[in-house]
Amino acid sequence: VGQSRVTITPLDGLPQVQPGDDLGALLIAALERAEMTPQDQDILVVTQKIVSKAENRYLDIAAIEPSQRANELAKIVGKDPRLIEAVLSQSVDVLRARPNVLIVETKLGQVMANAGIDQSNLDATDHGRRVLLLPEDPDASAALLKAHIDRRYGVSVGVVISDSVGRAWRLGTVGLAIGAAGVPSLWDRRGEPDLSGRKLEVTEVGFADAAASAAVLVMGEGAEGRPAVLVRGLRWTAPDAPARALLRPKAADMFR
Amino acid sequence: VGQSRVTITPLDGLPQVQPGDDLGALLIAALERAEMTPQDQDILVVTQKIVSKAENRYLDIAAIEPSQRANELAKIVGKDPRLIEAVLSQSVDVLRARPNVLIVETKLGQVMANAGIDQSNLDATDHGRRVLLLPEDPDASAALLKAHIDRRYGVSVGVVISDSVGRAWRLGTVGLAIGAAGVPSLWDRRGEPDLSGRKLEVTEVGFADAAASAAVLVMGEGAEGRPAVLVRGLRWTAPDAPARALLRPKAADMFR
Repeated sequence: VGQSRVTITPLDGLPQVQPGDDLGALLIAALERAEMTPQDQDILVVTQKIVSKAENRYLDIAAIEPSQRANELAKIVGKDPRLIEAVLSQSVDVLRARPNVLIVETKLGQVMANAGIDQSNLDATDHGRRVLLLPEDPDASAALLKAHIDRRYGVSVGVVISDSVGRAWRLGTVGLAIGAAGVPSLWDRRGEPDLSGRKLEVTEVGFADAAASAAVLVMGEGAEGRPAVLVRGLRWTAPDAPARALLRPKAADMFR
Repeated sequence: VGQSRVTITPLDGLPQVQPGDDLGALLIAALERAEMTPQDQDILVVTQKIVSKAENRYLDIAAIEPSQRANELAKIVGKDPRLIEAVLSQSVDVLRARPNVLIVETKLGQVMANAGIDQSNLDATDHGRRVLLLPEDPDASAALLKAHIDRRYGVSVGVVISDSVGRAWRLGTVGLAIGAAGVPSLWDRRGEPDLSGRKLEVTEVGFADAAASAAVLVMGEGAEGRPAVLVRGLRWTAPDAPARALLRPKAADMFR
């Protein structure tokens, strides 16, 4: 599959998303404002934050009674024990606890800091009170958005739900796909010939993660952040795979 | 800094790069064929492979006498001991050795499989004989290419040298910046306000890695691979930082 020019277009003017909002409808309105009519294999990338907000994944940490384990970890990490308890409630394993760092395996099987909970980009009234959890089932959230957009336009788009995460051996955050539908999140290209006609050695491509990284670059962060972009021009032939296909099985994890 | 639409354009028609080729001149010819005139803050992303080829970073493994350590590791990993010796020659530390996996810290400080050496995309005559090492100093290689293009067009472009790598906890490869010039490879956005006016919690952005991931998605792999793309439309205000700024210091490495 040859790629030609790819464009990444930010969708401006989305309102602050509120619990219960119809995110599909908001995205369609943003697409129309941008005069973008979705086409087959367009990929709509939306941040985890707006999906979580629409799904009311807020958790009031004021009401949390931290466990002993949370209190112990809070001392090591140097954060509010109620926040740590919230992280533990979303996790199945703690990989590392260090000052300012808590790396866990989430219920969904993702290895990430703070179970993907963050306190930035919450409303000013939330300071220290509410946190925002990841969507309960991000692949299902992506599939719902895809169905909504496909139905509206009579096409088959990809939807990727992105997050910004750190890495083990490198500084700086990059984008990651925590949910996806309509794209080959993990694209198995093993067996395809390389330029010399030899079989490619390694090539399962982290397609949805790379798409999320590209999108997050355009989304920006902070005050100018745009929570949705349309990626147009990527072509693929591989079957769809959800974002959970990107999770390395625990048995193959060498760094735990 | 708000981002507007970003385009990623593959530069077609590059010849098979040979040792001693003037890669800057080849890229300028490819830009002209694509009718792309570089502008300030355009980012030219080129694969490590073509940079290494131009710099004649081939190593003839037929001539290598493997050390005892290489022989031991070769048994674990299940690869040619001479290839393992080549990997060790580029490394300062071995993090993990498992069947089919050898993860090292390179002399440059990168944690990666096989010290970035791979055997795919070499010429058919190379089978089992020559391997291609990473550039000796990829940031310097990027700076040279940048100087060449800037001089030719009277602009200031970014140059990123990309590689495709695996990740600890996720399947599939994504792009990574192993060398960079003229871009804020690590973009420190801590202290910028978020949407609610609160200071962002974490935000050093892995800008060059994300740009490499975006580019690698468009480059493709295997028979249709394009080794260079132009990324246009990203805007930044941060100072330049080389790709080595992305390396997490060993003292802060929790997963060794």
